[in-house]
Amino acid sequence: MTEQPDTTDSIDDETNSGSKTPIDGEFTVTPYAVKGEIDYDKLLERFGADPLTDEQIRRFPEHPMLRRRIFYAGRGVDRYLEAAETGEPHAIVTGRGPSGPMHLGHVLPLYLAKRFQEETGAMVYVPLSDDEKYLAKDQSFESIGKHTRDNLRDILAVGFDPERTRIVIDTADADVIYPLAVRLANYLTPATVEAVYGEQDTIGLQFYPAVQATHLLLPQLVDGRQPTLVPIAIDQDPHVRICRDVATKESLPVDKPGALLGRFLPSLEGPGKMSSSGDVPSIELTADPETVATTIRKHAYTGGRATLEEHREHGGDPTVDVPFQYLRFFFEEDDEELERIAKQYRAGELPSGELKATAIDRITAFLTAHQRGRDALGGLEDELEPYRLTDGERRRPLERAGVPMTTRSD
Amino acid sequence: MTEQPDTTDSIDDETNSGSKTPIDGEFTVTPYAVKGEIDYDKLLERFGADPLTDEQIRRFPEHPMLRRRIFYAGRGVDRYLEAAETGEPHAIVTGRGPSGPMHLGHVLPLYLAKRFQEETGAMVYVPLSDDEKYLAKDQSFESIGKHTRDNLRDILAVGFDPERTRIVIDTADADVIYPLAVRLANYLTPATVEAVYGEQDTIGLQFYPAVQATHLLLPQLVDGRQPTLVPIAIDQDPHVRICRDVATKESLPVDKPGALLGRFLPSLEGPGKMSSSGDVPSIELTADPETVATTIRKHAYTGGRATLEEHREHGGDPTVDVPFQYLRFFFEEDDEELERIAKQYRAGELPSGELKATAIDRITAFLTAHQRGRDALGGLEDELEPYRLTDGERRRPLERAGVPMTTRSD
Repeated sequence: MTEQPDTTDSIDDETNSGSKTPIDGEFTVTPYAVKGEIDYDKLLERFGADPLTDEQIRRFPEHPMLRRRIFYAGRGVDRYLEAAETGEPHAIVTGRGPSGPMHLGHVLPLYLAKRFQEETGAMVYVPLSDDEKYLAKDQSFESIGKHTRDNLRDILAVGFDPERTRIVIDTADADVIYPLAVRLANYLTPATVEAVYGEQDTIGLQFYPAVQATHLLLPQLVDGRQPTLVPIAIDQDPHVRICRDVATKESLPVDKPGALLGRFLPSLEGPGKMSSSGDVPSIELTADPETVATTIRKHAYTGGRATLEEHREHGGDPTVDVPFQYLRFFFEEDDEELERIAKQYRAGELPSGELKATAIDRITAFLTAHQRGRDALGGLEDELEPYRLTDGERRRPLERAGVPMTTRSD
Repeated sequence: MTEQPDTTDSIDDETNSGSKTPIDGEFTVTPYAVKGEIDYDKLLERFGADPLTDEQIRRFPEHPMLRRRIFYAGRGVDRYLEAAETGEPHAIVTGRGPSGPMHLGHVLPLYLAKRFQEETGAMVYVPLSDDEKYLAKDQSFESIGKHTRDNLRDILAVGFDPERTRIVIDTADADVIYPLAVRLANYLTPATVEAVYGEQDTIGLQFYPAVQATHLLLPQLVDGRQPTLVPIAIDQDPHVRICRDVATKESLPVDKPGALLGRFLPSLEGPGKMSSSGDVPSIELTADPETVATTIRKHAYTGGRATLEEHREHGGDPTVDVPFQYLRFFFEEDDEELERIAKQYRAGELPSGELKATAIDRITAFLTAHQRGRDALGGLEDELEPYRLTDGERRRPLERAGVPMTTRSD
């Protein structure tokens, strides 16, 4: 899940200059802009995706983000579930655009993917689009490289099974990524890409959708045709749609990747607000308990009343209360406890300050565990090694895609 | 030198769908089309390049293609000559687009580069743009790969000094090429590229100019700032101009590459003709003596008269006679001998058939030597190895360009 203010990190965090006009209605949801009060059902109609059925949610590994329909829709979900249930190969792709430190919102899909991996043995691919971030952001490659190494530590801290996880960095794994992207680029016209991404500032950004399609098809190119699920905030769905088109274009040995589409983790400022101004900090994964407490107390939008007296009399509104929403999205796994909190809040029995304290507790506990994992890591190169593509995993996708290893065969 | 019908192989053989309108006047010269009777002086004015001075030609290594002003103009030539004379590092880049077998015209710049290497110790870089050929031509990657391996044998047969030569293949060396191309792509706007290359069919072709700029700057990125000369047919000059713009854009540790601009080797059909129809074969480097003889006798445009009698009376015209032009471009090194042939031809003393026989002799001798070199090669992988970038030569350009080796530093 992305945080709403920084809506664009689910797969590859596209926040370049390409601008899109609103599709219709009073709210806008594109890979570059999320504005207004979002009607998530209308969005599905617009995008042509299917809401998750109760049965589908039961069949997924147990997780509050599914149970509570934070992830509420998808594409190609049944095929993924079949493979997960029968033990056939299946994969998750959940990427990261390393343009800054990772925030709470960035790491939630990674923990979801880890749960899936533990429950059904899913292969998890985590592509890092340092190429696109260099091109899209006003940062040097050196700066992007610094963030990449920092983000890698957070990704490694999640504790994925190295046997079933591959972390791919566009520049460091260009020997595989670039030839595959060229192979796929042959099916991506400027018109198709511009319709989704808008006009671009550089020819590097024009090419990037081919790299992104490579990310989503990589599990199948490495290990053969298999259902692949991409958990993303719904604004990122166009990326998946482009890749699904490519996947059907020619004799590529891949199926269309599926998507698991989610709602936006609200920004601390509350629903519908954008904090790109930078006035309101996000909670970084390295935040210490004091910072978490201060940030939540000072900046989190509350559904409570102006005074404790009013709050006691009229009650608060958990649906817009950011600390409550954080608990609902991820940090309170117990449904009954969550319901108890909501009820007490609505009744005015639970003051905002106490709800904030609960959220601070849960987030701090989560971050403490995450940071413990991060601190236990050794040197990055050594830690990363078991997660990198092996020689065979570099050769096979090129063979599958029909890209000759020019210098190896004779 | 490219052959006129297939005008686009000097650096990277761009013959994709992008079409350009004629600049002005009665002839058209762009990277994609050469039409009409070419006024080579006017072309220099259009492109803003400088004709080679007598002094510059004297300072270059002795070669008929310079002495006879087949290469007749350039950019940044003096800086290159200074370095070549003082023994400072200097480089040549001469590439190949591997979309088919190599012809006579394709190999001439390679032999010129070899001469420069022998005389002044120039580093020679030979990039093969298999990525672009896959995208631009209606061929599978498998087919492009087959041509790549075949072309590599011809390039290796030239007999470059492996200590001073690097052969780079875009897909096989993508670990270096792609990150550098991304770095440069940041300075290439769609508008700039479209102005030179026209609209493209795919986003892969939109990106390719960044790869091409990488080729031209690679010697400097690997070994440090140094004069680099790119010998090309003049229609390819826009590629160099784009790269020269990029080279000045920011704090890249490179100088603008120079160009050595040449005339077109006429097609067998004669000056101003295009043989893209494929009716007239080109002479491939693997052609046996019989094929060479038949092809020249049957297809080479002659400046001779319709009958031997007329020829004896009025004489022939060597300036349009293709066998004579082949001798002039490359295959008759002796100026006096060439002048003698021209004189006798003009006087009607030398019949077309005999001139053809001389050209056949010289071309066959050249091809026999080339083919001997080719046949003496062992397995491609082993033969290529000493010409490939070393580990240090892969690391250094990324460091110089400020692209972090994310997984290596910690």
